[in-house]
Amino acid sequence: MRSLCSSLGTAEAGSTVTLEGWVHRRRQLARVTFLVVRDRSGLAQVVLPAGAAVPAEETTVRVTGTATRNPQAPGGTEVTDATVLALTEDAATPPAELWRPDLDVSLPTLLDHAPVLWRHPAQRARWELAAASLRGFRATLDGLGFTEVTTPKIVGTATESGAKVFPVDWFGREAYLAQSPQFYKQQLVGVFERVYEVGPVFRAEPHDTVRHLAEYRSLDVELGFIEDHRDVLAVLRDVLAGMVDAVRAEEQAVSRTGASLPVVPDEVPVIHFRDALALVGAPADEPDLAPEHERAVSAWALAEHGSDLVAVEGQPLAKRPFYTHPWSRDGAGAPARATERSSNSFDLLFRGLELVTGGQRLHRVSDYERAIRARGEDPATYDAYLQAFRHGMPPHGGFAIGLERWVGRLVGAANVREVTLFPRDLNRLAP
Amino acid sequence: MRSLCSSLGTAEAGSTVTLEGWVHRRRQLARVTFLVVRDRSGLAQVVLPAGAAVPAEETTVRVTGTATRNPQAPGGTEVTDATVLALTEDAATPPAELWRPDLDVSLPTLLDHAPVLWRHPAQRARWELAAASLRGFRATLDGLGFTEVTTPKIVGTATESGAKVFPVDWFGREAYLAQSPQFYKQQLVGVFERVYEVGPVFRAEPHDTVRHLAEYRSLDVELGFIEDHRDVLAVLRDVLAGMVDAVRAEEQAVSRTGASLPVVPDEVPVIHFRDALALVGAPADEPDLAPEHERAVSAWALAEHGSDLVAVEGQPLAKRPFYTHPWSRDGAGAPARATERSSNSFDLLFRGLELVTGGQRLHRVSDYERAIRARGEDPATYDAYLQAFRHGMPPHGGFAIGLERWVGRLVGAANVREVTLFPRDLNRLAP
Repeated sequence: MRSLCSSLGTAEAGSTVTLEGWVHRRRQLARVTFLVVRDRSGLAQVVLPAGAAVPAEETTVRVTGTATRNPQAPGGTEVTDATVLALTEDAATPPAELWRPDLDVSLPTLLDHAPVLWRHPAQRARWELAAASLRGFRATLDGLGFTEVTTPKIVGTATESGAKVFPVDWFGREAYLAQSPQFYKQQLVGVFERVYEVGPVFRAEPHDTVRHLAEYRSLDVELGFIEDHRDVLAVLRDVLAGMVDAVRAEEQAVSRTGASLPVVPDEVPVIHFRDALALVGAPADEPDLAPEHERAVSAWALAEHGSDLVAVEGQPLAKRPFYTHPWSRDGAGAPARATERSSNSFDLLFRGLELVTGGQRLHRVSDYERAIRARGEDPATYDAYLQAFRHGMPPHGGFAIGLERWVGRLVGAANVREVTLFPRDLNRLAP
Repeated sequence: MRSLCSSLGTAEAGSTVTLEGWVHRRRQLARVTFLVVRDRSGLAQVVLPAGAAVPAEETTVRVTGTATRNPQAPGGTEVTDATVLALTEDAATPPAELWRPDLDVSLPTLLDHAPVLWRHPAQRARWELAAASLRGFRATLDGLGFTEVTTPKIVGTATESGAKVFPVDWFGREAYLAQSPQFYKQQLVGVFERVYEVGPVFRAEPHDTVRHLAEYRSLDVELGFIEDHRDVLAVLRDVLAGMVDAVRAEEQAVSRTGASLPVVPDEVPVIHFRDALALVGAPADEPDLAPEHERAVSAWALAEHGSDLVAVEGQPLAKRPFYTHPWSRDGAGAPARATERSSNSFDLLFRGLELVTGGQRLHRVSDYERAIRARGEDPATYDAYLQAFRHGMPPHGGFAIGLERWVGRLVGAANVREVTLFPRDLNRLAP
């Protein structure tokens, strides 16, 4: 019966225990040999005679011996009088010493040797925060009456937005990898009212930046019967709070990564796009916030509202996808706005970086037909998508969170590739 | 403040309530007009004067009126003195009457009109069982110390198995859609010991059968430090029990779909492949169980063990992928077996259909190199994959469950397409 390393402290002193794991470190001293075993739960120390043969680091082993209290050992208990059985041939030397507290390697080395270097406890902990985030995301939405859905990643037409697509040879026909589940999650609001999906999305944009991947995980949410985008933002707030709670519960991983968790306020501060432009001193006709503007808006939210999160709403309609709902809120107390140019959209900034895009969508089929024609396109091209709207859809909206960006911000990674298990980009298709 | 249809019964009689949903049915009688509203929770009846204008079926509406007890109404409460506000123009007539108890349409109609026909309560309930299954799958594995992972769906080489692959144009280079996360989940056992992933897999096999899709959802599990494939089967048993429990909790959906839930025995009955061949009267040198043999083995398990589930183990090694571990169990009490020809594999049959494939994998890098060379291939081709093995891997194994087949069996669907939200196959890329 195997004991986990983390539970060794609960074994009766003097009892026989069996550990299974990797040789994390071996130290041959003059009078004793130490073997540190690593398993999914943590580390344990095994004491062997001086000169004992010990398998190479990273070899998998089964260790049987006596649980012995020793305040110097990790967890206060070590294994003595041990026999060590290697489960394979000796492992090759890793590209970095995994037992050192910090994994100090270049990004290319990290990525080329991902299968091995993710074993480093501090690196592995970064993904444990990703897994916890997924758990918190789903638990929150399940509690709010959402239904998980899965939508096709191969689509017959490439019409959703400006993002470039990857062509697929589909039994001799040209198809495309889905850039997002947008059209499908909207159609499924017609079925379930409230849906979410965690899945891969594919963007063939030849960006080589620290924040873009060609394949990433999108946490997609869509809900019906809303008043406007502020209802969507309220759900986003709850989702982020649930994700942070789930991450916080992973105490060991939070500590190993040095992650700094945001306090999620009861209400996320919101600033209108135009007010944000004025705040950062940008011209009033700028169509976008530049990265330095996003950082300045985040700094403002932190100073004024004590919040790591801030939503910018009301982006110019012309800069949003065709299905975006125009601005519909009265500017009570706010500067008058030209409603025809603004939209019921928002971007959520997390410590200076755009993390989430969301908003209200159109819901009348006549509005869709007009918006599609205004792009110079034929509504017939969108026939499958528009079917849902012809047959009755509620006012609705949603958002998408990029998992890698979220985790990257939590742990302060300089590049999203550092928190992606096997990243895909312009240059990388392996490992 | 909106009330859900299902909670109308808890509203104080005489209080004002607001419902939001779809016009499920309208009935103009001589003395009264009935409007049935459908939302994500269920149905509610609204009583209007004879001749009242009511939006077309499937139009979304907001209804405000008085909660009035009426034992004849669904849930014992209806809405009277109501005003009905349509949220869009009148909806187009659906391709089938969604208010009828059964959705009696042909498969092509169902698939062509998926965005609308999934709204039918009995059809929607099928997906609700899929969503519950996913919940039960993850909750069980989270409880067993597994870590959720995400692996790339675009890969640079197409080497895993015989299944045909879809080529992708990746920034001008040829890449492929992943046929399974097999190689990645194994590498991640080296990191996390126990991993799972729910994701799309892509099979370019030009089958046009009732049980194959070109894109489907694979529920993948892999775990380290096992004795052999029977440890994998024990985890599979717990996972299926967790999925059935989660499905059972969806009482309304179970009842609407008429799903028949299997009793998951504490231990799934296991029969060796050769004994299965003998049992069904097939020649001893058959390399596979034919579909009628699978049905016969399932019938035997039900008769002998009262189980809807049965595992067939020890398939011929030559018929399994190159990473399969050879047979290593003593045949205590069982017929002697030629160990070199049998494998530590299993297939799980669920009511006559293969639902899960699993087994133990090789774990020594030298075994991989030998197995790859035996296929006439160069181990260098598998360099990224073999990296994990060179640097130390435990004995491990895993399995994959096809979500659509699972749900299809639960509800007795004749074709997996009936339980897939937007299926993709040889002929279908839309909606």
